[in-house]
Amino acid sequence: MADSTTRQLYTNLAATLQEIASLSQGLHVLGWDQQVLLPSSDGATAARGKALAALSGLVHEKSTAESFGALIDELEVQPDLDEELTVVERANLKLAAIDFRKNKNLPTSFVREYREHTSLSHAAWVKARKADDFPAFAPVLAKTLDFCKQYAQYVDADRPVYDVLVAEYERNLPSTRLAEIFSELREALVPMIHTINAAEHPDTEWMDAIHWDVKKQEELCKHIAQEIGFDFTRGRLDASVHPFTSGFNTYDVRITTRYSATHFAEGILGTVHEVGHAMYEQGLPHDLDGQPVGRALSLGVHESNSLFWENFVCRSRAFWRHFFPKIRELFPDIPEDKTADDLYAAINVARPGLIRVDSDEVHYPMHIVLRWELETLLLNGEVEVDDLPRIWNERMSSYVGIAPPSDKDGVLQDVHWPEGLVGYFPTYTLGQVAAAQWAHAMREQLGDLDELIEQGEFKQILHWLNENVHKKASVPESADALLEETVGEKLSPKYLIAHLKQKYSELYGVEL
Amino acid sequence: MADSTTRQLYTNLAATLQEIASLSQGLHVLGWDQQVLLPSSDGATAARGKALAALSGLVHEKSTAESFGALIDELEVQPDLDEELTVVERANLKLAAIDFRKNKNLPTSFVREYREHTSLSHAAWVKARKADDFPAFAPVLAKTLDFCKQYAQYVDADRPVYDVLVAEYERNLPSTRLAEIFSELREALVPMIHTINAAEHPDTEWMDAIHWDVKKQEELCKHIAQEIGFDFTRGRLDASVHPFTSGFNTYDVRITTRYSATHFAEGILGTVHEVGHAMYEQGLPHDLDGQPVGRALSLGVHESNSLFWENFVCRSRAFWRHFFPKIRELFPDIPEDKTADDLYAAINVARPGLIRVDSDEVHYPMHIVLRWELETLLLNGEVEVDDLPRIWNERMSSYVGIAPPSDKDGVLQDVHWPEGLVGYFPTYTLGQVAAAQWAHAMREQLGDLDELIEQGEFKQILHWLNENVHKKASVPESADALLEETVGEKLSPKYLIAHLKQKYSELYGVEL
Repeated sequence: MADSTTRQLYTNLAATLQEIASLSQGLHVLGWDQQVLLPSSDGATAARGKALAALSGLVHEKSTAESFGALIDELEVQPDLDEELTVVERANLKLAAIDFRKNKNLPTSFVREYREHTSLSHAAWVKARKADDFPAFAPVLAKTLDFCKQYAQYVDADRPVYDVLVAEYERNLPSTRLAEIFSELREALVPMIHTINAAEHPDTEWMDAIHWDVKKQEELCKHIAQEIGFDFTRGRLDASVHPFTSGFNTYDVRITTRYSATHFAEGILGTVHEVGHAMYEQGLPHDLDGQPVGRALSLGVHESNSLFWENFVCRSRAFWRHFFPKIRELFPDIPEDKTADDLYAAINVARPGLIRVDSDEVHYPMHIVLRWELETLLLNGEVEVDDLPRIWNERMSSYVGIAPPSDKDGVLQDVHWPEGLVGYFPTYTLGQVAAAQWAHAMREQLGDLDELIEQGEFKQILHWLNENVHKKASVPESADALLEETVGEKLSPKYLIAHLKQKYSELYGVEL
Repeated sequence: MADSTTRQLYTNLAATLQEIASLSQGLHVLGWDQQVLLPSSDGATAARGKALAALSGLVHEKSTAESFGALIDELEVQPDLDEELTVVERANLKLAAIDFRKNKNLPTSFVREYREHTSLSHAAWVKARKADDFPAFAPVLAKTLDFCKQYAQYVDADRPVYDVLVAEYERNLPSTRLAEIFSELREALVPMIHTINAAEHPDTEWMDAIHWDVKKQEELCKHIAQEIGFDFTRGRLDASVHPFTSGFNTYDVRITTRYSATHFAEGILGTVHEVGHAMYEQGLPHDLDGQPVGRALSLGVHESNSLFWENFVCRSRAFWRHFFPKIRELFPDIPEDKTADDLYAAINVARPGLIRVDSDEVHYPMHIVLRWELETLLLNGEVEVDDLPRIWNERMSSYVGIAPPSDKDGVLQDVHWPEGLVGYFPTYTLGQVAAAQWAHAMREQLGDLDELIEQGEFKQILHWLNENVHKKASVPESADALLEETVGEKLSPKYLIAHLKQKYSELYGVEL
């Protein structure tokens, strides 16, 4: 018996999607190579720019071809769709249709103007930040916000602007849900932060006397990556100025990291964080490689993986106990009387700081809440761009306990708004929230998580994530849906709050 | 005044060619990455294969588009072509037209069948070589030769088959010229080789006792590459199983090399050889990047650069004298009584050997002459595939002075025929011939070449090649034309013969 029309149409769709994904792999390899290996001459950068432009033009052409749209349209109206296609296939069709229509709805001229603007905006930000001159950047940011509003209008005029923007990174998470989650967090964390800030911090000065040899850190980090489950036959670990992870497909996932000779923790925490991202990519279903439904669900879910490994594994006492013999062997300068617990305490010092990326797990969420509040207020017109520095500084003081002496280390610190990435910030904290939910569920299902870590039973942990998170890829409609399916409850900050309360009460000897 | 029609058409042509070149850059980066960095899992290779297929399909589509052909046709008949376009631009048009028509003349079905055949042929060769079973490979090779004949028929039915095949690698060099050059070489070299083979070889056993640390070889090779003129801001040097050079454009030229802990010379000679290729690519005119006329002229001319640096610089006494202090510093095991001259003698031992790639500069050309003779005889029908091993072994004995005990190290040794590369071999020796002509011309124009090398004046040498060879790119019609322009004489083996005669008379204390 011949295949049904529906089956044939779906096969064509999958082949087209695979071809677009294969060409995109080319783009991603070119981009990775540019960041990691490209020779330094300007001519090399310019020639690479031409290659990226030519190839991305082709990918865009293929992604918006009339014939591709017609295929989607025809498939969607097949009366036997539900019988002929599996749940995964229907989800794939849906995602392909969303992508296609979004691309089609955006006028080419608008895309070009917006891209030109963000390129100028990035340059203006670099200059303004260097000169510590927010007023010079303000009109550029105001224009970015206008572009964002237009963008949302093109993509879906019926939904609130901020919901459309967030959906670029986090599927189907409306502003109302963000407000619920972030208000609960703010209410719990602000008093905790003020108590911790006032407490006595552990002594970490002894760390400064140690020679943290970078080559040895590299050896240690490769050892840790291997042991916690990164598959080196399906990936690489290299060095770059800004650490990042690229998943070309589930068989080729590349991490870059960096090491500091003075800040020992940076290399390890950074590597484990990127390994968390990478193991998610490696854990996605091989048979869905190249299909939209085979992608990671969202940036928040991505970050829930990296932050689970960073905060719940690498920042745990058990982790340092497990790896301490190896660490002492590599760094014989560590004083005799220091133990794994001293390293654990040093790695977990929580101090108010101005810079988001240097923040610890208890202050970090408030950096995000602040940015989320400001994005929302700006798009609603409740705050003008010119007022940003004032409100930023007030809220930093109230939420984090410290106010920046200059905008350079305040409102001008992040690359996101200058690059037009509005609605992106929330995903960091959504990831931290979900990570605490994974940890809670593992404790219920696998037993004492810290015991597993101390014994080096990382395989069980990774297996749990493989089964409950990775394999589901983009089949669930949202992070909320995934969490409900997996742990029986939507995104809820109560597990993160409980974790931080317990951990920091003990570390700082205070009542939180 | 508006641009003329001719100028507008040319501008369009150049833009189309640049776009094809930019997409090809993508292909080349994917290929390089696959050989140097790709994770080892089969899935990674399969996914990369899909990406390469998708992208090369697109490049082919663009390269054979009707509109592209129409543009070429229209431009070619412009009456003011000679006034409006420069010599370089007209050469560019001509090359673009040749490429386009060749691609168009080849039926897609033929290209597919041929590609499938060479893929099977490669696999059959690997198997036959392992089993030392030429008869198993013979029918496959016979079929390859049939494909070659058909190919030549499609491309240009009016020219001899072998001329068409050679032209894939070496532009406009007819069989008659090859016969002239190779007969003269054979006549001079065969008696030289037999005299050298019978002479006493210098003692090189002391080299075996030295620990040639691979890391230190790497340091030495980077130092040498830098000093002889490889521009590291426009290129890279990495390690891979099979050394090769990739020029994505003049600003991004990548060498790979390999080191042996027991064969010290291999890493240095190999690196200098690849640096020679790479400096040619770096020396091509930047403003012609992405245009056919901006490419290297031919494989023979490419090899003339790598072999000039390998044979006339790296294999010279002056080179070892210049670098000896550095070498002694890196390898303190070298006995006190050994000098640069001892290393020079060791590096230049000339012994009859079965394997082409391990051959020295005096035996190497005869390995090539043998292959050229056999290719020609096979295509003319004067020799049957089944007779190859017998003729191979007879001629090896007569030309090189040694006959292979088995086909594995005889007729089955090279990857070229199994990959369908017929007509490729001559380029190696053409390169060696031209390299001797460059060296002769430099001596006339720059003075004592060995003095320059010993003083480390590599810049002057590179500059001469930049001006006389590299900058001309593909403007000359052939290697003969380039040589005539540069040194006043077509390809002529007499300079190579004189060089070998002088060098080996002195090294072996014999009369040649």
